[in-house]
Amino acid sequence: MIEVTHRYRFPAAHVLRSDRLSDAENEATYGLCANPNGHGHDYGVEVTVGGEVDPRSGRLCPPEALDAIFEERVASRFGHRMLNDDPAFAERVPTAENIARAVHERLEEPIAARCGARLVRVRVIETRNNSFVYGDPR
Amino acid sequence: MIEVTHRYRFPAAHVLRSDRLSDAENEATYGLCANPNGHGHDYGVEVTVGGEVDPRSGRLCPPEALDAIFEERVASRFGHRMLNDDPAFAERVPTAENIARAVHERLEEPIAARCGARLVRVRVIETRNNSFVYGDPR
Amino acid sequence: MIEVTHRYRFPAAHVLRSDRLSDAENEATYGLCANPNGHGHDYGVEVTVGGEVDPRSGRLCPPEALDAIFEERVASRFGHRMLNDDPAFAERVPTAENIARAVHERLEEPIAARCGARLVRVRVIETRNNSFVYGDPR
Amino acid sequence: MIEVTHRYRFPAAHVLRSDRLSDAENEATYGLCANPNGHGHDYGVEVTVGGEVDPRSGRLCPPEALDAIFEERVASRFGHRMLNDDPAFAERVPTAENIARAVHERLEEPIAARCGARLVRVRVIETRNNSFVYGDPR
Amino acid sequence: MIEVTHRYRFPAAHVLRSDRLSDAENEATYGLCANPNGHGHDYGVEVTVGGEVDPRSGRLCPPEALDAIFEERVASRFGHRMLNDDPAFAERVPTAENIARAVHERLEEPIAARCGARLVRVRVIETRNNSFVYGDPR
Amino acid sequence: MIEVTHRYRFPAAHVLRSDRLSDAENEATYGLCANPNGHGHDYGVEVTVGGEVDPRSGRLCPPEALDAIFEERVASRFGHRMLNDDPAFAERVPTAENIARAVHERLEEPIAARCGARLVRVRVIETRNNSFVYGDPR
Repeated sequence: MIEVTHRYRFPAAHVLRSDRLSDAENEATYGLCANPNGHGHDYGVEVTVGGEVDPRSGRLCPPEALDAIFEERVASRFGHRMLNDDPAFAERVPTAENIARAVHERLEEPIAARCGARLVRVRVIETRNNSFVYGDPR
Repeated sequence: MIEVTHRYRFPAAHVLRSDRLSDAENEATYGLCANPNGHGHDYGVEVTVGGEVDPRSGRLCPPEALDAIFEERVASRFGHRMLNDDPAFAERVPTAENIARAVHERLEEPIAARCGARLVRVRVIETRNNSFVYGDPR
Repeated sequence: MIEVTHRYRFPAAHVLRSDRLSDAENEATYGLCANPNGHGHDYGVEVTVGGEVDPRSGRLCPPEALDAIFEERVASRFGHRMLNDDPAFAERVPTAENIARAVHERLEEPIAARCGARLVRVRVIETRNNSFVYGDPR
Repeated sequence: MIEVTHRYRFPAAHVLRSDRLSDAENEATYGLCANPNGHGHDYGVEVTVGGEVDPRSGRLCPPEALDAIFEERVASRFGHRMLNDDPAFAERVPTAENIARAVHERLEEPIAARCGARLVRVRVIETRNNSFVYGDPR
Repeated sequence: MIEVTHRYRFPAAHVLRSDRLSDAENEATYGLCANPNGHGHDYGVEVTVGGEVDPRSGRLCPPEALDAIFEERVASRFGHRMLNDDPAFAERVPTAENIARAVHERLEEPIAARCGARLVRVRVIETRNNSFVYGDPR
Repeated sequence: MIEVTHRYRFPAAHVLRSDRLSDAENEATYGLCANPNGHGHDYGVEVTVGGEVDPRSGRLCPPEALDAIFEERVASRFGHRMLNDDPAFAERVPTAENIARAVHERLEEPIAARCGARLVRVRVIETRNNSFVYGDPR
């Protein structure tokens, strides 16, 4: 009945190149983002959780708990890093699509355990003009 | 087939304290927001209505009607007020979760009656980084 | 599983008047927007596509393809124009509701053909405070 | 010592063509904006006034007075209009530069008379990416 | 040569009433904001410092130092409070104009002492449509 | 009398480490940003030019000219790059302060030559909460 969305951000760098693609395919697929020197973004992340409001506190999930989970599971892991070097992207190119999926995978279990709420979806905002949703896409 | 979203806002104050919680529980649950002196927010409210577009006018709901309903039912009631003193929050702590629910309850019937549209959901935006949806959470 | 949203914009002018309404009805329905001299907006358009991520590239749809489709099918057609003169609005008043529908109709087929993705919804943002969604309203 | 900025907006249409330029020069100067059918924008306008704070009220200028002046002198004159038809633009092309100047000219005297404050500058925001300041450019 | 601006925020409540004004004057001056129950805002605060960049570090002022000063001098003092109860507003109504001045007074000395930079100006953002600058108004 | 501001952006990566500082000093000065793996930002850049409006065209500077200069001198040089590898940052750490200065140096001459306008200032927006102005700081 209630969905709560918190917005976070973390700065990181990436190179968009896939070992499974040739040089020409990499350039055709990723354009300037295939530049091997890397470049970066301030990834905005909207985390949406859903569930029942606790009638005593009037809250779905303590905001401090969500903040701590994000810091621990996402910001301290991916923030200020070259994403291509992270094991989460050993098999998957660190596109925003795959970043959304990786963030979702890292948040789902601790949110259920510590907030008693369900992670509904993760939106990664790469620039002011592009965003990527993983999970229940509503 | 069509959803129309209007954005409004109203400034108000609240204290987050529940009679059902001890002092220690109140502080653990609400942190600084439990400070009994109160503090406030400019609540942004996104009201989303859905339905069929009138083929003659090309509109779902006259914007002036929606504006008038919001002014009458929400802004003039909750705006520039201490929310804890309002009967809508006699039994429920005025968290953003409960504000979203209270706004939804006050808008649903007049929107059906005067716009011929369905209130789909209400989003309360407490800060740039937090928002709360009540209703059909899509 | 993944939804990707790109944001575009195009400036255009419109007059909100319906031949099926009397002068008095036009003014009652559209207010100042019925002024026959026309006025305009920078329409923001959020295009959301959904589908499966290609495991090789990690992308749902090449951003350049979506950009080219939007430019070709929407911006070069409706941008810098008086919308009332466009055949898409011969039978329908160019309200934001109908603009959202017209944009959706022009994008659906080429996105399926060239991106291999599904057009989920189109959101037209008329002002900072109003937006209109056509399609799957989630 | 204090500057106060209020933000307003008005939707309008314009065509960028100068009688003093040839057709080719018009296209070279204004690009798509020279399209004779017109197009439009939601002009954002930031009005900045400066002066001394009244020690009794703690205010520089009553916000309601500034709102009324803007409505009367700018919004009701230029809003929902084709700017090329307005006498203010008989001799000057309605570029954002000239709109900023025209708004400044229409606000300066009533702000001095009714607010007891000085109009410092007017910023016209044509799109999210372009703005134009007339007056004291600080 | 360089100015650096950091943006912060703190939520607070206020009542706009002056002891030096009659009830009728209070209502005429402050409108709904004179409502004795209080209401609140999320005050955005932009702090701008200026000076020379350290050639070794390439920085004007360590961001952590500025963050700590703001937290200590402003957020922990005014945040989550009823501003009318604070000694800083014993003699001055807590309008946004006076809040900007109070914040400036509390930041100027520690920024000079700990950052070696000059506080250039403080902008208080009360709503999306109103802001108030105290200091060097450029 | 007129200032025109255009907003651009470019994504890039950087590492904040100075050869003139010890490891401990680097960490004390730059915190997480000293992480040698690099991280990145979408740098927003506001370019402000000033001068006289051409009475024939009503424009200060053709927007296409400014766009082309930015693309040529800044975006194609710094965009999608590791800034530490660029000669502009051989002697200066690529902090936002120094990026603002480098962008200013690369734009000043061509804007004077091709727009007939003066580059007034460059603002680099590193995140939603921090910005850095080089030039005439008004």
